[in-house]
Amino acid sequence: MDEFERIAQLRTAFASSQPVAGILLGIGDDAAVLARPAHNLVLSVDAAVDGVHFRADLADWATIGARAFCAALSDLAAMGAQPRAALSALILPESFADAELAELGRGQAEAAARHGCPVVGGNLARGTQLSITTTVIGEVEGVGLTRGGARVGDEIYVTGVLGAAALGLVLLETPASALSGAGSFVSRWRNPTPRIPEGRALVAIASAAIDVSDGLLQDLGHLCSASGVAAVIDVSTLPALPGFAELAHAHGQPPLRLALTGGEDYELVYTLPASRPAGRAEALATAQRLGTRIGKIVAADGSDAIVLHDAQGQLVTVPGRGYRHFGG
Amino acid sequence: MDEFERIAQLRTAFASSQPVAGILLGIGDDAAVLARPAHNLVLSVDAAVDGVHFRADLADWATIGARAFCAALSDLAAMGAQPRAALSALILPESFADAELAELGRGQAEAAARHGCPVVGGNLARGTQLSITTTVIGEVEGVGLTRGGARVGDEIYVTGVLGAAALGLVLLETPASALSGAGSFVSRWRNPTPRIPEGRALVAIASAAIDVSDGLLQDLGHLCSASGVAAVIDVSTLPALPGFAELAHAHGQPPLRLALTGGEDYELVYTLPASRPAGRAEALATAQRLGTRIGKIVAADGSDAIVLHDAQGQLVTVPGRGYRHFGG
Repeated sequence: MDEFERIAQLRTAFASSQPVAGILLGIGDDAAVLARPAHNLVLSVDAAVDGVHFRADLADWATIGARAFCAALSDLAAMGAQPRAALSALILPESFADAELAELGRGQAEAAARHGCPVVGGNLARGTQLSITTTVIGEVEGVGLTRGGARVGDEIYVTGVLGAAALGLVLLETPASALSGAGSFVSRWRNPTPRIPEGRALVAIASAAIDVSDGLLQDLGHLCSASGVAAVIDVSTLPALPGFAELAHAHGQPPLRLALTGGEDYELVYTLPASRPAGRAEALATAQRLGTRIGKIVAADGSDAIVLHDAQGQLVTVPGRGYRHFGG
Repeated sequence: MDEFERIAQLRTAFASSQPVAGILLGIGDDAAVLARPAHNLVLSVDAAVDGVHFRADLADWATIGARAFCAALSDLAAMGAQPRAALSALILPESFADAELAELGRGQAEAAARHGCPVVGGNLARGTQLSITTTVIGEVEGVGLTRGGARVGDEIYVTGVLGAAALGLVLLETPASALSGAGSFVSRWRNPTPRIPEGRALVAIASAAIDVSDGLLQDLGHLCSASGVAAVIDVSTLPALPGFAELAHAHGQPPLRLALTGGEDYELVYTLPASRPAGRAEALATAQRLGTRIGKIVAADGSDAIVLHDAQGQLVTVPGRGYRHFGG
């Protein structure tokens, strides 16, 4: 197929992701046109590069396409935004087969349909290294959930579980890994879920939020830095899938390190005011139910941005690269 | 510099391109936030890949950055859209120096400032081949200028001149090219101008438009295909810079082929109703003054989408790849 035939093929795949009203012009012109949004615009772009962000020997192309799409959507979730549309820019090597492109596009289209974010345009280019660059456009009330609003005394929550995707990747990379219970971790890595409904519910009440793409310590560190605060985390409260610690140990991975520094969970870390705001008790209660409380925001004292302790209040240190960003 | 330092450096460069009201949140959070637009949204993405779309031996990094930015903006111009904001996703090899990145970002920022399209976000990724993927967001009344609205009898116009950028590239690639008059062509290649004001003026009156990124024949062919029509072009009317034919001949390039198939002019080809629409004579006259009339739209007869003739009405055939797409 030539470039135009490939575009036509993707256009067909993405058409199934476009039942949405408000798309005035989709793929096929110089640009896409969307009806004027009802709220402010939220814009983000994310690239997934072959051999850097994904490996074709660990997942099929549909999975790779869907994961790249969900990683981009996760940034909208972290802003509390409602996804509106996406653009897909692919750089493809000559050797990439038409059938592979069809699978990649199918994975993107399925993720787009699942999360209500139709692909309305894109770009195909030739290159030596495959990459998937996804632009996502959403809408939000006000400025949405920023990283910079956490205040001393706020409580820190995280949705879902931590470290599951990182452990899933370890399991995938382990030849003949057939340990009982591996499936749910591999599935977490394969099929990340951008926390869009959670972000929408949090936008009215959370003081700050970020998604966990590079590991809790790194991403919470960004939140603390943007807010000019520090965090204290009780590591005994970090949420995990059943069997996480045992399976991690069995594969030589300290579970705490995976939970703190493992990437690609795409959960939301968010902060809630400790005091019950007048008239917003219900929003606060909902926000509390959406995640697990893991710590609190404290004043930055110029040393560690994130202090870890266990259930007995004893300080905990964790070796590993993710932590070095924030250690003293 | 690590990734975060590089982002901080680019953030500073792009800050100068952000004097614009309506940016509620710029670079540095999970996403950018723009105030609700007044009109419909226009979205496009374009990638420039090292060795495919640009060569570092032919231009400095600021020029490469600016050209990539303008190529993306040209799609907004072709829609008649007013640029609003841009996102820059860079894939950079390990060897790419901090100073080179600073220059690349400066070129992008200068183009952004020149055309009123601030860079509000982006992404940095590691890869083996440098690429610059630019998302542009604009606003337009209605669906803007599409490719699909040309009707039989419409007159075909093009802004500016054709083939100048392609000849400029030939001159750049010719060692020790010091022929008189080369500068203006090289400058056309180096500093393309997306036709944004022209697109804005045309949006109220033109029946169809496309930008000339891949050569007149190819891009006008897309317009004809989308509109279900064909075109007759009088090649004697194709606008050119002074000295174009002589300089092209001197470098072994048939000037007509350059004008018809040379890419990267980023002019607009547009169609205007031949009959004077009631109450819109002034808009039509303005639209006519913005370009040169080069032909007319005729009914598609299933053979050539674009028929070329000379001033005497004799059919003209042009060898070259751009033409093969459309020849019988």
